[in-house]
Amino acid sequence: MPVTPEQEAEIAELRATPRQTLRAVSEGMEKHLYEVKPVLDHGFVRVIDYMGDDAAICQAARVSYGKGTKSVQNDAGLIRYLMRHWHSTPFEMCEIKLHVKLPVFVARQWIRHRTANVNEYSARYSIMDREFYIPEPEVLAAQSVVNNQGRGEVLQGEEAARVLEYLKTDAARAYDHYEEMISQDGQQGLARELARMNLPANIYTQWYWKVDLHNLFHFLRLRADSHAQYEIRVYADEICKVVADWVPAAYQAFEDYRMGGANLSGKALECIRQMLKGEEVTQESSGMSAGEWREFQSVLNG
Amino acid sequence: MPVTPEQEAEIAELRATPRQTLRAVSEGMEKHLYEVKPVLDHGFVRVIDYMGDDAAICQAARVSYGKGTKSVQNDAGLIRYLMRHWHSTPFEMCEIKLHVKLPVFVARQWIRHRTANVNEYSARYSIMDREFYIPEPEVLAAQSVVNNQGRGEVLQGEEAARVLEYLKTDAARAYDHYEEMISQDGQQGLARELARMNLPANIYTQWYWKVDLHNLFHFLRLRADSHAQYEIRVYADEICKVVADWVPAAYQAFEDYRMGGANLSGKALECIRQMLKGEEVTQESSGMSAGEWREFQSVLNG
Amino acid sequence: MPVTPEQEAEIAELRATPRQTLRAVSEGMEKHLYEVKPVLDHGFVRVIDYMGDDAAICQAARVSYGKGTKSVQNDAGLIRYLMRHWHSTPFEMCEIKLHVKLPVFVARQWIRHRTANVNEYSARYSIMDREFYIPEPEVLAAQSVVNNQGRGEVLQGEEAARVLEYLKTDAARAYDHYEEMISQDGQQGLARELARMNLPANIYTQWYWKVDLHNLFHFLRLRADSHAQYEIRVYADEICKVVADWVPAAYQAFEDYRMGGANLSGKALECIRQMLKGEEVTQESSGMSAGEWREFQSVLNG
Amino acid sequence: MPVTPEQEAEIAELRATPRQTLRAVSEGMEKHLYEVKPVLDHGFVRVIDYMGDDAAICQAARVSYGKGTKSVQNDAGLIRYLMRHWHSTPFEMCEIKLHVKLPVFVARQWIRHRTANVNEYSARYSIMDREFYIPEPEVLAAQSVVNNQGRGEVLQGEEAARVLEYLKTDAARAYDHYEEMISQDGQQGLARELARMNLPANIYTQWYWKVDLHNLFHFLRLRADSHAQYEIRVYADEICKVVADWVPAAYQAFEDYRMGGANLSGKALECIRQMLKGEEVTQESSGMSAGEWREFQSVLNG
Repeated sequence: MPVTPEQEAEIAELRATPRQTLRAVSEGMEKHLYEVKPVLDHGFVRVIDYMGDDAAICQAARVSYGKGTKSVQNDAGLIRYLMRHWHSTPFEMCEIKLHVKLPVFVARQWIRHRTANVNEYSARYSIMDREFYIPEPEVLAAQSVVNNQGRGEVLQGEEAARVLEYLKTDAARAYDHYEEMISQDGQQGLARELARMNLPANIYTQWYWKVDLHNLFHFLRLRADSHAQYEIRVYADEICKVVADWVPAAYQAFEDYRMGGANLSGKALECIRQMLKGEEVTQESSGMSAGEWREFQSVLNG
Repeated sequence: MPVTPEQEAEIAELRATPRQTLRAVSEGMEKHLYEVKPVLDHGFVRVIDYMGDDAAICQAARVSYGKGTKSVQNDAGLIRYLMRHWHSTPFEMCEIKLHVKLPVFVARQWIRHRTANVNEYSARYSIMDREFYIPEPEVLAAQSVVNNQGRGEVLQGEEAARVLEYLKTDAARAYDHYEEMISQDGQQGLARELARMNLPANIYTQWYWKVDLHNLFHFLRLRADSHAQYEIRVYADEICKVVADWVPAAYQAFEDYRMGGANLSGKALECIRQMLKGEEVTQESSGMSAGEWREFQSVLNG
Repeated sequence: MPVTPEQEAEIAELRATPRQTLRAVSEGMEKHLYEVKPVLDHGFVRVIDYMGDDAAICQAARVSYGKGTKSVQNDAGLIRYLMRHWHSTPFEMCEIKLHVKLPVFVARQWIRHRTANVNEYSARYSIMDREFYIPEPEVLAAQSVVNNQGRGEVLQGEEAARVLEYLKTDAARAYDHYEEMISQDGQQGLARELARMNLPANIYTQWYWKVDLHNLFHFLRLRADSHAQYEIRVYADEICKVVADWVPAAYQAFEDYRMGGANLSGKALECIRQMLKGEEVTQESSGMSAGEWREFQSVLNG
Repeated sequence: MPVTPEQEAEIAELRATPRQTLRAVSEGMEKHLYEVKPVLDHGFVRVIDYMGDDAAICQAARVSYGKGTKSVQNDAGLIRYLMRHWHSTPFEMCEIKLHVKLPVFVARQWIRHRTANVNEYSARYSIMDREFYIPEPEVLAAQSVVNNQGRGEVLQGEEAARVLEYLKTDAARAYDHYEEMISQDGQQGLARELARMNLPANIYTQWYWKVDLHNLFHFLRLRADSHAQYEIRVYADEICKVVADWVPAAYQAFEDYRMGGANLSGKALECIRQMLKGEEVTQESSGMSAGEWREFQSVLNG
């Protein structure tokens, strides 16, 4: 269970006390506020706050005095136009704040998206909890043989068992020693900022992360992609569900143009034009590398 | 009057329809939402949306599950500590969205603050309104004789009258020609994206501007400062009033540490130490330049 | 002529004094350094400095100790891979610094690209020069009838003459009055920060602009595009030529994947798949709007 | 020894082949290029590239056509003025690119400075080296009793020995298991992106880090500060030495105004004014908290 009963009570209290506001409200989002969405074995995503809705995107694009909405249909069309033509600033007018609990190695990948605001739990100041990510057997995979940075077949039998054993016992021992080192019971007690260096990268950390919708879409396109590492993709997937409820029109445009779309090179477009004329096209005639050609084929095959 | 009756009606409608939310609400800010705060002769600032309050700053700093508030007093102390030690990320957890109407030459100064989101009214797409900033006589000042980028005495008599006459008639004529050039009445009509080049820098534009509290404080420190150009300072002053109501504890810390404080150099600190020991200090002994010494004296004199 | 003989002499001096460095050097770029590339009637682009070359992109991608180059061919392949998979950080490892002279209305569009460093000539501190952009007759176009923010047919005869007359005389008069207002000859002289408001948006300003290669590519993709306003596109075109000499492999990848490529939506990809199977596809069956369908057709037709 | 003989040879080769350039050259910086500056037990900082020098700061501030230098003394005065008045953009016109090898827990603190470009060695793609940070006995300190996020007394005797033993053996065992898990010798071999999660935070990683001078100064002010964690401070100290040779005038201004200076609140300034008039001031009369008063006293005492 990712949160304690005490924390659950705090969350319940927050959800029990609605207040009045004159700001734009997204009904779809209100139902998610504060709720713990479990991810991996001990992690979660929680929406802490949000600003704006679909209408706010249009309102900013039109620099309007009032709500900026003409009609829901009209707005959806404008939002599709903005997305298609890379008008990013209206999407920046929506903002979301998340509380995320995640393994350190996932956090290190996540933080590479720099256009966001972050407050992380401080291991200089505070004591880390004894919580480590241990993969489920079905995601414990071998190194990919075709992709240098991906996974292949699921590990089997003894090998899988040994890996899980190592991950569990090494984490447990590292944490035991961490605790022992910082203990002030009968000794000085090592500084927390030093002791933390003994903890492995599957320990959980947590942070508040705030980002605008444009940059969030960029994050989701890369991290909800099938080539992203599974352990970050599950967070991205969870966030996608929330965004779909928050700004449905913008999310639909994002799905069509970004997630479901593809960026084709001039060479690829030329191939398509030739194919539509009935001409034969091969990797050689295309001028593409083997890898590029493979990717192009997979786009054509859907 | 900066807005039309139709726009006023739109604003009134927005203010008349409160809705329920589970998000953090700042009562002090709710009363400002959508309201037109007139600035200069035709400009304004309007709060369109906001995220967070004083408690949200503490909540993020503590990465907490619940509201994060221990007590109002406790929170104010934490906020002062964060501000004093340049912990900027908790302040980034609050966000504000403004609708601003301002002369183009002010907009050009404003936009230099890059860490913000902006949607400006498009003069490629739309027709600009006939509204120009004409200074009040009491702010129509001469070039400063001590500061290369400031103002000196107020202009007098005929000179003042001539300046106002130029500003008014040149703007009017430029706009007449703008209108004539884009007119499609009996002619092709020049493209808007070209015609706009005839308009002077005192014409009003407008934009949606969204920024986090940390970067807003940075903007306010520079632009609400007595050395800022009057025409941008009046906008900053208006925003200060709003922020004081939105996040009172953060604003108070900002006032004490940033607006009312000073950054003293190592040389200046050394002078103070000597003076407190009763030693005499002069510009020569201080190692400061004349300008620097003058600024130091004005800090000491308050 | 965009620069004075005195400025030309300064530039010639800089070009006459090569020095030794241990840094990466791009021979293709050295020949451009400091040279004035004229743009529009009084504008220019000049390369002031640069950091990195094609090899530096690979060196960073490989986090290598030495030069990071395996072979030129190998590097080009890696660069294409990075561009195709949106690995933006290696491209951020190259940086360029430009000195640009440009009309104010172009500057206002340009500055919307926020991830760059800018120092603009200060009209608070200094006196603006009497230089205005007056379009050549062949680019003096009417408002587009199909695109709300574009141009249509070139203006003809009397209408064209009248527009040019307005642009020239309004600019001249505005500048005369600007000069008269700031004059301290027999009067106080209006502050420069105020007088500038009388100047129209076709006056030239200038700035130093520094940006990394990734963000420059983003700028070029939008501003060298055929839908960009002509007056900014000519700057982007000039920069493209320079970049092609600076980082030839990266520029070629950019041309193929970004400038010559297209981003197709899921709907568009589905249409292509159907067409390749010989099925008929119409706007109705595609689910696209009229505008989207038109854009899709133009991608297919090349 | 932080680099292999092979890497040393690569570095030597780079240093042996100067080339001609027309760009600004900083002689003080050329001598540092590529050199390994050892930090901690296995880490280092290396300058890979740089853009600009003191004159380039002034050139940008003046938006000049030529070198922009009037005289070295003149330039130093301008640089001090710019620093004092928070004119940050001219400092952004200089850029530095570093190759850094550092423990992961240091990297996680470092990356919080977001306005920089980073390429990190990928543990998804590559195999990590067996190198761990083990503190020297004299920096192995207890948790501070006055500061929640600092260090106190150095650990003694058996306790110190036990801590070192834990850090060493846990790291060695974790790495043994890491190697064993990814091995494809007689087994499938766990994916690298998963195996890395077993590695502790004192393992070394490396990256290319590129930043402009303004943001570098911000980093150095926080990380070369006496309150920064020792393990990041030693990197900042090493970078300070390099910057002092690269842009001597800017570095001197930075030292005086930022490192050696202090930001005093309005309350603190009021106290100083009273003290200079000979009035007595106490914590109570000052309105400061205990912590704030202590910090104020330490500024006064130098």
